[in-house]
Amino acid sequence: MKISIPTSDKPRVVIIGGGFAGVELAKSLKNSGYQIVMLDKHNYHAFQPLLYQVATSALEADSIAFPLRKIFKGYKDFYFRMAEVNDVIPEENLVISSINEIAYDYLIIATGSKTNFMNNEGLTISSMPMKSIPEALNLRSLIFQNFEKALVITNERKRQGLMNFVIAGAGPTGVELAGALGELKSHILPKDYPELDFSMMQIYLIQSSDRVLPALSLSSSEKAQRYLEKLGVKVVLNTRVLDYFGDYVQTNTEEDFVAKTLIWTAGVVGAPINGLDAKSIVRGNRIEVDEFNRVKGCKNIFAIGDVAAMITEKNPMGHPMVAPVAIQQGKWVGKNLKRINQKKEMSPFVYHDKGAMATIGKNKAVVELGKMKFGGAFAWYVWMFVHLMSLVGFRNRVIVFFNWARNYFNSDRGMRLIIIPFKLSKVKRQRKKAFYDKQDVDG
Amino acid sequence: MKISIPTSDKPRVVIIGGGFAGVELAKSLKNSGYQIVMLDKHNYHAFQPLLYQVATSALEADSIAFPLRKIFKGYKDFYFRMAEVNDVIPEENLVISSINEIAYDYLIIATGSKTNFMNNEGLTISSMPMKSIPEALNLRSLIFQNFEKALVITNERKRQGLMNFVIAGAGPTGVELAGALGELKSHILPKDYPELDFSMMQIYLIQSSDRVLPALSLSSSEKAQRYLEKLGVKVVLNTRVLDYFGDYVQTNTEEDFVAKTLIWTAGVVGAPINGLDAKSIVRGNRIEVDEFNRVKGCKNIFAIGDVAAMITEKNPMGHPMVAPVAIQQGKWVGKNLKRINQKKEMSPFVYHDKGAMATIGKNKAVVELGKMKFGGAFAWYVWMFVHLMSLVGFRNRVIVFFNWARNYFNSDRGMRLIIIPFKLSKVKRQRKKAFYDKQDVDG
Repeated sequence: MKISIPTSDKPRVVIIGGGFAGVELAKSLKNSGYQIVMLDKHNYHAFQPLLYQVATSALEADSIAFPLRKIFKGYKDFYFRMAEVNDVIPEENLVISSINEIAYDYLIIATGSKTNFMNNEGLTISSMPMKSIPEALNLRSLIFQNFEKALVITNERKRQGLMNFVIAGAGPTGVELAGALGELKSHILPKDYPELDFSMMQIYLIQSSDRVLPALSLSSSEKAQRYLEKLGVKVVLNTRVLDYFGDYVQTNTEEDFVAKTLIWTAGVVGAPINGLDAKSIVRGNRIEVDEFNRVKGCKNIFAIGDVAAMITEKNPMGHPMVAPVAIQQGKWVGKNLKRINQKKEMSPFVYHDKGAMATIGKNKAVVELGKMKFGGAFAWYVWMFVHLMSLVGFRNRVIVFFNWARNYFNSDRGMRLIIIPFKLSKVKRQRKKAFYDKQDVDG
Repeated sequence: MKISIPTSDKPRVVIIGGGFAGVELAKSLKNSGYQIVMLDKHNYHAFQPLLYQVATSALEADSIAFPLRKIFKGYKDFYFRMAEVNDVIPEENLVISSINEIAYDYLIIATGSKTNFMNNEGLTISSMPMKSIPEALNLRSLIFQNFEKALVITNERKRQGLMNFVIAGAGPTGVELAGALGELKSHILPKDYPELDFSMMQIYLIQSSDRVLPALSLSSSEKAQRYLEKLGVKVVLNTRVLDYFGDYVQTNTEEDFVAKTLIWTAGVVGAPINGLDAKSIVRGNRIEVDEFNRVKGCKNIFAIGDVAAMITEKNPMGHPMVAPVAIQQGKWVGKNLKRINQKKEMSPFVYHDKGAMATIGKNKAVVELGKMKFGGAFAWYVWMFVHLMSLVGFRNRVIVFFNWARNYFNSDRGMRLIIIPFKLSKVKRQRKKAFYDKQDVDG
């Protein structure tokens, strides 16, 4: 059946994904002569840059999520459907979703990225990703479950494992998470668990290259590392994680780490849908697009944001998989679709790199805006201001601001809650068992 | 093993449960010459009176939960353990928990109550309880999942089922939930789902007796019913739910109700632990206690709050299972324990009934304080003030106040999020299958 969305004499734009790219695109097409259909498996837009604050109990999940239907309230010819999209049939201009088949005139793939476990079964099963709100809540639960367990366990080595946290990947997410854990260790956990010896607790940030935040300048990397070390984080450079089965982290050096928690922020790959020409899927599982974000070989299919790789001579790797690219591409493709509707030529996408930033802790951040590079308290204010203003919704901004102000003045984090305890999913438990069974057979 | 809590020369009070009763008791024993051990299966105190606001997306879950460790920060000789308690062995002064055996000098059972499905298997499997934060979040998810489904379904009768909500039990919880659903129907849902016809949506509040809020006065009941009807709630009196298997609600009258959602607020029973003398468990699965809240036949075991039934001539049913009784008993037993430590006589518990209240919607509440009975906007302000002041934690009060102020001025509810989609648990799915298999055999 191809039903459930009213037919219209306007051309239909189907957008898959309500992340930064998809939302910006839909906004820029407001009442523009297209019928817009947005599909997402969630009914909300998640502000991913603050997931680490949910995971470390500084913010409640609901304040970084915003109902998609609310964003587009009052839009004419806009239809949201909560659905997972599995396939596209380009020859028939048809998308196959979990609720029905949907025909399109223009298709926009804004499906983002997913955690890249490097096809390592142990890591896939046992490490903690942090790409979605449920994953961040899982991590929050696990952190506090670990300390509750550490209190009652008699085996010292197991207690050490419960109190150790290893983060693989020192990009912005890994650095920010490590810093936040460092603050938990300094200010919160010793008050909650006065019986535990927090000199035992170790936070390791493992990075394969020779510095943290490799996308930023050397001076920012050094500054960030210094901040991290001040917060008690042990930065382990030139080291790659090889394997993990839930108890200790094996690396390519002499050093291994006993830890019940490995948080995997060491890489993402694109999350394209099935049905596109295999040749259009390039490095990093991304979809190759031309300078108009059109999927290679297609006339009416676009890809934007993390999932799109606009490979040019100047940019042989495509743009970085970050929010500003997604936002700019969403707006740009929106403009181009309006030009198409006005029978005008599309114009090629130009990325304006406004810089990068990362926060490590209170009064500790690094910011690079063009040639300006600065750190410390001022950088931290800039970071907070930019993130606060980027949040969707007045309510969310106020609640986040209030929580931050409160954390600032009394170094507290109110959300130390285990609402839904973390446990390995049934699928992962089965995979774990199968994996060990296989190991036994293989010797 | 009986380890993990340091031995002390002070007598040990073990409190099972961090609800209203348990928290008040522990507070009143602050640094009082006892070693306090609190056990709860959650690491937070949940403010149950506002669960219905979480379920209807007016408040985030984290603002009505407060970490138990934080409440007791800085208490000397206080030990919290996240653990489920399964049994007590009174002869050995020992509690058997999920983490270990714990010896006590005084045991306080403050385990509260649980939803009473009247031993009906269909209701147990298919209706939605709302006694905990995870249950309230499940209900929130289900509400919005229903409307997402209603949009894409072709079968009209099924759409009707998805858009109907039946609430069984018109005590304060049922009434407040029905009112909140009425407000969702009036102000929020038609904007989110402009394609659906909300004249189809029905909210039925079913009550076995002849009025809503039977614990309040007749005039308050009538007022509350009028408010409910203004919000579009259909009040169905003198009717009992007989059975439900997920599709339609069977009652003891001619009238049945097609509904994919039945919310069960029609009763609770005590949730005692195993190991007590069977004779001490009385009507409503509560533990019979004397006027000092001592469990009948025990010298050093007390029960307080919902789980305790203090049966006297004046009070042949025990006190009502409400928060004020739990709070007062917690404080009172705390005082008596201090008297014991000072070799003084205990004094018998006296309940001060300060009244009752329920809110139905904006500017619509009923309040009874002693002989004063009033409704309308002023009652609503009183209700809000009392609930705001009862919340634990400055942060929670500010966030709840802000959300209420915002809801007041623009009738909005920001938390329309399906973070963890609701689905029947594996256990319930299996029970459902077993139930139907049995039906087939029995014919």
